[in-house]
Amino acid sequence: MTAASNRIAYLDGALVDEDQVRLSFRDAGAFRGEGVYDSARTFDGRVMWLRPHLERLWRSLAYLRIEPPIGIDELERVSLEVAAINYERVGADIWVTQRVTAGVPPEFGGTGTPTVIVECFPIPFASRAATFRDGIRALTPTVRRTPPWAVSPHAKTVDLLNLRLAAMEVAAVDPAALALVCDENGNLAEGPGANVFAVSRGVLVTPRVDHVLPGVTRQVVIELAHEIGLEVVERDVPLFDAYTADELFVTSTSYCICPVASLNGARPRAGRIPGPVTERLQDAFSARVGIDVVDQYLRHADAGAAPVAS
Amino acid sequence: MTAASNRIAYLDGALVDEDQVRLSFRDAGAFRGEGVYDSARTFDGRVMWLRPHLERLWRSLAYLRIEPPIGIDELERVSLEVAAINYERVGADIWVTQRVTAGVPPEFGGTGTPTVIVECFPIPFASRAATFRDGIRALTPTVRRTPPWAVSPHAKTVDLLNLRLAAMEVAAVDPAALALVCDENGNLAEGPGANVFAVSRGVLVTPRVDHVLPGVTRQVVIELAHEIGLEVVERDVPLFDAYTADELFVTSTSYCICPVASLNGARPRAGRIPGPVTERLQDAFSARVGIDVVDQYLRHADAGAAPVAS
Amino acid sequence: MTAASNRIAYLDGALVDEDQVRLSFRDAGAFRGEGVYDSARTFDGRVMWLRPHLERLWRSLAYLRIEPPIGIDELERVSLEVAAINYERVGADIWVTQRVTAGVPPEFGGTGTPTVIVECFPIPFASRAATFRDGIRALTPTVRRTPPWAVSPHAKTVDLLNLRLAAMEVAAVDPAALALVCDENGNLAEGPGANVFAVSRGVLVTPRVDHVLPGVTRQVVIELAHEIGLEVVERDVPLFDAYTADELFVTSTSYCICPVASLNGARPRAGRIPGPVTERLQDAFSARVGIDVVDQYLRHADAGAAPVAS
Amino acid sequence: MTAASNRIAYLDGALVDEDQVRLSFRDAGAFRGEGVYDSARTFDGRVMWLRPHLERLWRSLAYLRIEPPIGIDELERVSLEVAAINYERVGADIWVTQRVTAGVPPEFGGTGTPTVIVECFPIPFASRAATFRDGIRALTPTVRRTPPWAVSPHAKTVDLLNLRLAAMEVAAVDPAALALVCDENGNLAEGPGANVFAVSRGVLVTPRVDHVLPGVTRQVVIELAHEIGLEVVERDVPLFDAYTADELFVTSTSYCICPVASLNGARPRAGRIPGPVTERLQDAFSARVGIDVVDQYLRHADAGAAPVAS
Amino acid sequence: MTAASNRIAYLDGALVDEDQVRLSFRDAGAFRGEGVYDSARTFDGRVMWLRPHLERLWRSLAYLRIEPPIGIDELERVSLEVAAINYERVGADIWVTQRVTAGVPPEFGGTGTPTVIVECFPIPFASRAATFRDGIRALTPTVRRTPPWAVSPHAKTVDLLNLRLAAMEVAAVDPAALALVCDENGNLAEGPGANVFAVSRGVLVTPRVDHVLPGVTRQVVIELAHEIGLEVVERDVPLFDAYTADELFVTSTSYCICPVASLNGARPRAGRIPGPVTERLQDAFSARVGIDVVDQYLRHADAGAAPVAS
Amino acid sequence: MTAASNRIAYLDGALVDEDQVRLSFRDAGAFRGEGVYDSARTFDGRVMWLRPHLERLWRSLAYLRIEPPIGIDELERVSLEVAAINYERVGADIWVTQRVTAGVPPEFGGTGTPTVIVECFPIPFASRAATFRDGIRALTPTVRRTPPWAVSPHAKTVDLLNLRLAAMEVAAVDPAALALVCDENGNLAEGPGANVFAVSRGVLVTPRVDHVLPGVTRQVVIELAHEIGLEVVERDVPLFDAYTADELFVTSTSYCICPVASLNGARPRAGRIPGPVTERLQDAFSARVGIDVVDQYLRHADAGAAPVAS
Repeated sequence: MTAASNRIAYLDGALVDEDQVRLSFRDAGAFRGEGVYDSARTFDGRVMWLRPHLERLWRSLAYLRIEPPIGIDELERVSLEVAAINYERVGADIWVTQRVTAGVPPEFGGTGTPTVIVECFPIPFASRAATFRDGIRALTPTVRRTPPWAVSPHAKTVDLLNLRLAAMEVAAVDPAALALVCDENGNLAEGPGANVFAVSRGVLVTPRVDHVLPGVTRQVVIELAHEIGLEVVERDVPLFDAYTADELFVTSTSYCICPVASLNGARPRAGRIPGPVTERLQDAFSARVGIDVVDQYLRHADAGAAPVAS
Repeated sequence: MTAASNRIAYLDGALVDEDQVRLSFRDAGAFRGEGVYDSARTFDGRVMWLRPHLERLWRSLAYLRIEPPIGIDELERVSLEVAAINYERVGADIWVTQRVTAGVPPEFGGTGTPTVIVECFPIPFASRAATFRDGIRALTPTVRRTPPWAVSPHAKTVDLLNLRLAAMEVAAVDPAALALVCDENGNLAEGPGANVFAVSRGVLVTPRVDHVLPGVTRQVVIELAHEIGLEVVERDVPLFDAYTADELFVTSTSYCICPVASLNGARPRAGRIPGPVTERLQDAFSARVGIDVVDQYLRHADAGAAPVAS
Repeated sequence: MTAASNRIAYLDGALVDEDQVRLSFRDAGAFRGEGVYDSARTFDGRVMWLRPHLERLWRSLAYLRIEPPIGIDELERVSLEVAAINYERVGADIWVTQRVTAGVPPEFGGTGTPTVIVECFPIPFASRAATFRDGIRALTPTVRRTPPWAVSPHAKTVDLLNLRLAAMEVAAVDPAALALVCDENGNLAEGPGANVFAVSRGVLVTPRVDHVLPGVTRQVVIELAHEIGLEVVERDVPLFDAYTADELFVTSTSYCICPVASLNGARPRAGRIPGPVTERLQDAFSARVGIDVVDQYLRHADAGAAPVAS
Repeated sequence: MTAASNRIAYLDGALVDEDQVRLSFRDAGAFRGEGVYDSARTFDGRVMWLRPHLERLWRSLAYLRIEPPIGIDELERVSLEVAAINYERVGADIWVTQRVTAGVPPEFGGTGTPTVIVECFPIPFASRAATFRDGIRALTPTVRRTPPWAVSPHAKTVDLLNLRLAAMEVAAVDPAALALVCDENGNLAEGPGANVFAVSRGVLVTPRVDHVLPGVTRQVVIELAHEIGLEVVERDVPLFDAYTADELFVTSTSYCICPVASLNGARPRAGRIPGPVTERLQDAFSARVGIDVVDQYLRHADAGAAPVAS
Repeated sequence: MTAASNRIAYLDGALVDEDQVRLSFRDAGAFRGEGVYDSARTFDGRVMWLRPHLERLWRSLAYLRIEPPIGIDELERVSLEVAAINYERVGADIWVTQRVTAGVPPEFGGTGTPTVIVECFPIPFASRAATFRDGIRALTPTVRRTPPWAVSPHAKTVDLLNLRLAAMEVAAVDPAALALVCDENGNLAEGPGANVFAVSRGVLVTPRVDHVLPGVTRQVVIELAHEIGLEVVERDVPLFDAYTADELFVTSTSYCICPVASLNGARPRAGRIPGPVTERLQDAFSARVGIDVVDQYLRHADAGAAPVAS
Repeated sequence: MTAASNRIAYLDGALVDEDQVRLSFRDAGAFRGEGVYDSARTFDGRVMWLRPHLERLWRSLAYLRIEPPIGIDELERVSLEVAAINYERVGADIWVTQRVTAGVPPEFGGTGTPTVIVECFPIPFASRAATFRDGIRALTPTVRRTPPWAVSPHAKTVDLLNLRLAAMEVAAVDPAALALVCDENGNLAEGPGANVFAVSRGVLVTPRVDHVLPGVTRQVVIELAHEIGLEVVERDVPLFDAYTADELFVTSTSYCICPVASLNGARPRAGRIPGPVTERLQDAFSARVGIDVVDQYLRHADAGAAPVAS
């Protein structure tokens, strides 16, 4: 059950109170994992990089062979409208999320028309603020990322159980830690909704996309790095590289760029949070979005350690 | 959207019209795959093997670290009650399904109380009747079963996208065919909700449980085979064995035992449907449940080719 | 048995009628797979890229530790002579194929002298014409490509059973479809004698050579792409990339460049056959060889659907 | 080229001089590996275990989807006739081999009728005699056995290049050594045409059939072992087990049971050739076939070190 | 540096004060991992199961191709002598450990004579007592067990870095937890020097020996289980089985049988420490060795949480 | 036991006679593989590339979580001092090796202070001279390199058993051959302390660092190659590439650059030792270090075949 919110959402063509957005338990997105989603966020109310998020959503839809009942331009327009209304009501920056399921299948009495939702949620600045000050404690669980030959990591779907199992395994030993999951070959892959970068001798290293979601923020950071003259290498990243790195940080739509304080207890060699390269990239990112994204988090820093939401 | 049904269901403590069973899109079972289920069926209205299904459900819950808000005895009682009412209303044999999700997480405004549903659905005798007369056409897709080190196949969860991708790949070339998915090593594993057996020189062979759901009907068939004096071997089953088998059949709660006419176009050597061993097992199964399960399907045989529901 | 042909062939030093080219069943190329081959083709009678084909043949020979009893220059001369005679007799473009086996081993009463054959065969323009008009239907079989640590895919040998099994599995569900085999990791590899390319957002992507034969036409297409300003990336290509590509095409010595209409039923997003990038490459290829290779196929388009020959 | 022999063979319905058995180079068995075979042998002229060899041949044919143009009973009759004539002419025990290819495919001008050959060859007693006196030197090559998901090791086909590459790698360092190939997981699998057993603390251990040809002699040895009260375990056999074994031996149709003197230079701990358990099994085997199979080899022991024929 | 002890040890033929047992840094056991060892323990001063430990040591030596300069009977005699003297001096039960290295190699100026040591050390009853009262907290690290095709887990060698990395990764998040390492396929394998068992519905399940050291205590427990009528299954044990087990326990020479309180935070379902089956096995073990092994630990229970020694 | 040497060494703060450098058998570096090392060498007495060796040592220490009790600058100073004294005494070029272990752990009565050693050893010019004249015979063993997910190949540790097993397997068939170990995927990786390069059509190819130690000399050779205009590709190198290469050579600190005469008996196609590209690189290397490194070896060429020291 959800506490009542004052947010609105889009559901199959109409704007409704968010609390009214409910799915049949026979919706294929609810009972058999046939659903995709994508999330952008606002920066002082402005939605950024919405289009690449929607283009990724369209690739996810193609992979699940779902024909969306709405065009990409229309969904973009709806997303901006829903975001504007909710930003006004929430009074703080929010996620803007599109969800499409395969609907209720004909063999279960439905029409097979996909369900389309656009919804928003406040970014948990307070519960994450400490990670921007102290860095994230990251742990690699034993569970490994579902391999591409079973379900592609490039599709952003509701089948998140693999990442949830990883998160639960980590939370059982350190509730405030972030799970960074290894790929089928034991190299670093990704966290739930987060990409990871190492800085070693001035070079940025990040897992090649084979086993990870190609994050929109990941791509932005690569471009920012090039702009400020840093080399970026996309390749397999074994734990050795992470244990001997000068700096580590994660990227995500909501985190933007957040420093990692330790991986499995091993601390990056730069010795301060954030490391110098991480800080340069945070500054460049803030300049790009027009607000100080680190400061936005740090202003909530009295909120204690941060549980990680997927 | 679902066409209105006259079935009832159990939702979080109450019996309601099935159409009223809807989930918040913020239910973890709907947006991040944190949900499990299990299904028994009726035979002339009697629910059989309900307890082993519920015990498997409890193992699935433990794996997802969901504490159910209802005891196993109470859920058994509720299941029988819901089944009895719906069997009366439907007038034909039905699935009896328990569903438990992790509920709406606190970080998304919820209480984290698991959602519990018990619901029923008519078994599609008509659309499957032809497979009992002619045998199933089975195809192995390229997609392989999610490996146990990513998500265990022993937990019956709503994260069914892997099996759905397999089914879609197969349906694109033969809409009436059944997908039999190979495991990570290329051996036969399982279909969506179905186990597979080969008969070779009088011996039953079936994939060991490492990469498959340990089906309740699979276990019943193993016991029946022992009772009628057949050897059963649980081991890796490469495609070679299936291509050179005398007979092939699948088992599931609703199919019980259904012959396979061909695998990737190769026909078992027995040369008739069902093969003699398959038929003996079907007879033994019917004797056990007290109705002729094959005849029940064949009475609907004017219904044409069968799309496979997961 | 072969229907009589009017073609000639080279066998161990002499030109003979093709029908006289027969092997002892004790030839190691016939009974234990110790044989290699390579094939160029004519374009309006001119053999092109013969030398890179022969150089690849020499690498295949080195891998099988066969010392050829003929030099590369002499084999080139013989190939051109055999091609010229047969092109005259056939009256249409042909394959020009060199074959070398390990001969009859001493332990089976032979001399161990390698058998050398040069032979030609008409390219099946009629049976393939439809694929140039409508595109190839491609399917990925469950069988995966023999891994490099068992037999290198870089050697072009008569041990083609792995690719034949793939072709048979596909033909059993769609006789006119082309098998595109995945590598040991589940990424796209190659078809029998064919490489595959995807076009995504203007960039050409093709499997890196690790698990595929480095096709001569593949290399030509990469060079043509560079000449017309297209980026080409050689990397692992998961099925996700193929399912979400704008265009797909295959390359081979005889096909040159042929569009793919669907992969496992999923159609490339460009929505027409050939896609715009494919068409530009076909045009560049035709310019390079001096004949319109697409038109050559399309002139035979009344010949119906195309069985795939390896 | 083969030196003239006085042996006859069966080819597509007729008995002919062996030298006349030749294949079109367009026979699918010669140019693309579509051929199967199986070999029994004579013991003082009597062919033994012919039927299980033919049944295995039939499974190989089913795997390659070749419909044989001759029945199994007729092929058995032909085999016995060809064996009888050749045993008379050779004057010593021989292999009796059936070969079936897919014939010349229609797309290459043929009829697609399978080619059927039955032929014989003298067993090389002289060149192998030393191995029965001194034991086989066995080496594991780097090349690993083609995995079942690429081509099944259960089908006995002419695609023997994988095993030939293994044999060549070994022969390059020790021409008289036998290659024992490891499977994809690095466990012991098989030699070319040979299975392997270890004896450890009185128990026979041999690789389970997953990655090896299920040898007819292997099965005979398992049954003989049971008869003389030895436990036999079929499981994965890592090199550790072979390095610490008391005895090692190989089995094959022609070798029957031959002791291994060393594996990668490590000598079994029993310290004599043959070891005591190996000797008991050799004795039991000789009793079963009615001739002293070890003595038959040892009588040729002046012939020096033994090259291994596949 | 070591604090002075009053223990003696055997070094290359002589009994010396333990502090005098020092190795050249050019000993192959010190600089390149060429060393093996094995450990028995005393029970009220009596060394038990010494012979199977020494036989395993001999297999480890064979695997490393070290020829020991001492016979197994003599090493047994020496071990008992060293144990007797040290048990007298220590006044409590001790480990009795044999160590053999490859010595200083000739190419580094040595003789290549193996170094042989027999030494003892007090079992840390106090630091482990809490685990017998409360159960072990076990965690699976990301590091996986070195696979058998790299170094066999059946050889007990000084190359323990893989297990040390596992222990360090675990200690970084919970210094008192035990690392249970997964094998290359993600199944449970072993802890440093410890085997693991699950109890599910009255059946004992433990990893088959493929990826673990075949523990002497593991074997004793299997035999005890049979004696008290419990079924024991040796097979792959995925984490699912451990998460849904009724009881978990580990076995080792010094621990004997110690209950596991949680694995990755998930608690066995029996709900008490030790579980009923574990307790029966502990009792049977105590009866076998003639002392109450649990009580021996619990008498030290005021000593706090237990760091794990490898 | 070691023959007395006149060399000195550094041990935990003091210069001592090398023979006095001995470790407690309870040093974690001796009994459980917790030790790292690195080696530079002198060229006419001058130590080169010492700093990159020490930086690699520091990464190895970080991976093993050993805090060194000495700074990198101080260890550099000590290394130069120890090298100078020993070069004077030995009168020929030497290895200069730093060793750091985890010391004697507190739970075994120690202080846990790491042991630090700096020592020297004469490079075996005589025993290796023939390899510079005739080339190295290289063999790939069946043992494969420990994978990065078990122990990283980037850390240079005393856990060398995997490479020792490889060397022993090779030495058993050819005592003078060098083991070149394949990685977990069957591609060429590295020899004990040596990297490998192939030259194909003028391009240098060497295994990417994923499965090998990133050799300091390997890096020097890559830079020299660039300086003289050669392309260098770091990628997976299957055996096919090595079998069909024009030249092969290995690099190591002491070998510098040494030609390979054959790999598994297959000889590079250049047909002379060293090949032309190898020779150019040797010349460039000699120019860089200021002495003719090949001539230095060849002056000892009367010393016969070379056993390989790890």
